[in-house]
Amino acid sequence: MAMLKEFTIRTGEQGFYNITQDVKDAIKESGVESGIAVVFCPHTTAGVTITENHDPDVGEDLLLGFERAFPDTPDFKHSQGNSYAHLRSSAMGCSVTVIVDEGWPLLGVWQAVYFCEFDGPRTREYYVKVMGDRMQVPFDDPDEKAARLDAEDEALLD
Amino acid sequence: MAMLKEFTIRTGEQGFYNITQDVKDAIKESGVESGIAVVFCPHTTAGVTITENHDPDVGEDLLLGFERAFPDTPDFKHSQGNSYAHLRSSAMGCSVTVIVDEGWPLLGVWQAVYFCEFDGPRTREYYVKVMGDRMQVPFDDPDEKAARLDAEDEALLD
Amino acid sequence: MAMLKEFTIRTGEQGFYNITQDVKDAIKESGVESGIAVVFCPHTTAGVTITENHDPDVGEDLLLGFERAFPDTPDFKHSQGNSYAHLRSSAMGCSVTVIVDEGWPLLGVWQAVYFCEFDGPRTREYYVKVMGDRMQVPFDDPDEKAARLDAEDEALLD
Repeated sequence: MAMLKEFTIRTGEQGFYNITQDVKDAIKESGVESGIAVVFCPHTTAGVTITENHDPDVGEDLLLGFERAFPDTPDFKHSQGNSYAHLRSSAMGCSVTVIVDEGWPLLGVWQAVYFCEFDGPRTREYYVKVMGDRMQVPFDDPDEKAARLDAEDEALLD
Repeated sequence: MAMLKEFTIRTGEQGFYNITQDVKDAIKESGVESGIAVVFCPHTTAGVTITENHDPDVGEDLLLGFERAFPDTPDFKHSQGNSYAHLRSSAMGCSVTVIVDEGWPLLGVWQAVYFCEFDGPRTREYYVKVMGDRMQVPFDDPDEKAARLDAEDEALLD
Repeated sequence: MAMLKEFTIRTGEQGFYNITQDVKDAIKESGVESGIAVVFCPHTTAGVTITENHDPDVGEDLLLGFERAFPDTPDFKHSQGNSYAHLRSSAMGCSVTVIVDEGWPLLGVWQAVYFCEFDGPRTREYYVKVMGDRMQVPFDDPDEKAARLDAEDEALLD
């Protein structure tokens, strides 16, 4: 019953890669019915986002928009010359958190999870971490606590 | 004892909508004292952020700043013509995670949670998912595990 | 066994501050082996991000990139005159979520967690919230539930 799953992807120079199926697989494998899934990119020149899943032009438009908002410039000091990619990665973010409901990512009908390559081509990894709920037991009142636990048991048996 | 709550909002053309009260209500209804709350927007031309709650001008300034950083352009290929809105949504992000402490969102005094409309007017949804803590039981040492569980029970009864 | 830890930092005018060690300390102190850690900034003119940890020039380049993408302008209306800082804070985001694995933040080898000051110098706070896993018990089938609980107990004793 894996809660943490690692995936590998081979990317091109720049691009958005739909990884929603991997998120669904990780949730299914975890057995979690209700909770959250965190998709995390362990690279500093790539990121993760959620956007439109239907028209592949959207991914290209987003890349163009990020190129123009965060262009390369000779004023950058970083010796490796890829600060523009660190910048886009940082602005995009390296993780997304998705709600899990009934064993499924609670995404909008047009949403998909994308791995964002800003400095490829490379072999990249990403992680999907799935966490299940726990009904909360208040710590201050033993009677309320007992009532809650009973309610939880009842819910479990429903 | 709802852990996942859906809200509906009617938006204007563009705008930031303070939804902090909904987050507080969802936390209260969940009964969670300590944990996290994930606010998730299931749309690809809208987003969620946390920013200043006092001066409504800040929301307008942020919209202007996003318009200028991520302008529309004839170079976008997406046939629906709203790539600028997908771009702003993706750059802003479609979720925020808030810490829950003593049954309350642990926001700074000037912070509020905002739904960000980049392509309205529309009827929009958003979700608030609340998750409670669980004290952690190490899986490698049965004695340490037993001691931890005892400590947890004691805490529960305090 | 703290699950929520508050830190204080004294910042300069603008800058990125590596706070990864604080995240590691909070995880260690929580006793959580497997779960997530949420790093949250309760300010509206500062943020949190994950980026390159090796070359300090990267932080300066990111600040420059953010200054150019989100410049100050006389068109901003906010009376306090620091909308550019709210804008950068909002675009960067005020939290990051890190996966915890074997009691350690699952960061890439080049990644570190940074506090981002966009409107200093100030004394700032940030929080690290650590949450541990819970194996998930399905709510629809009492037999499956019992089997899962047995499996969980067995795992706990392994």
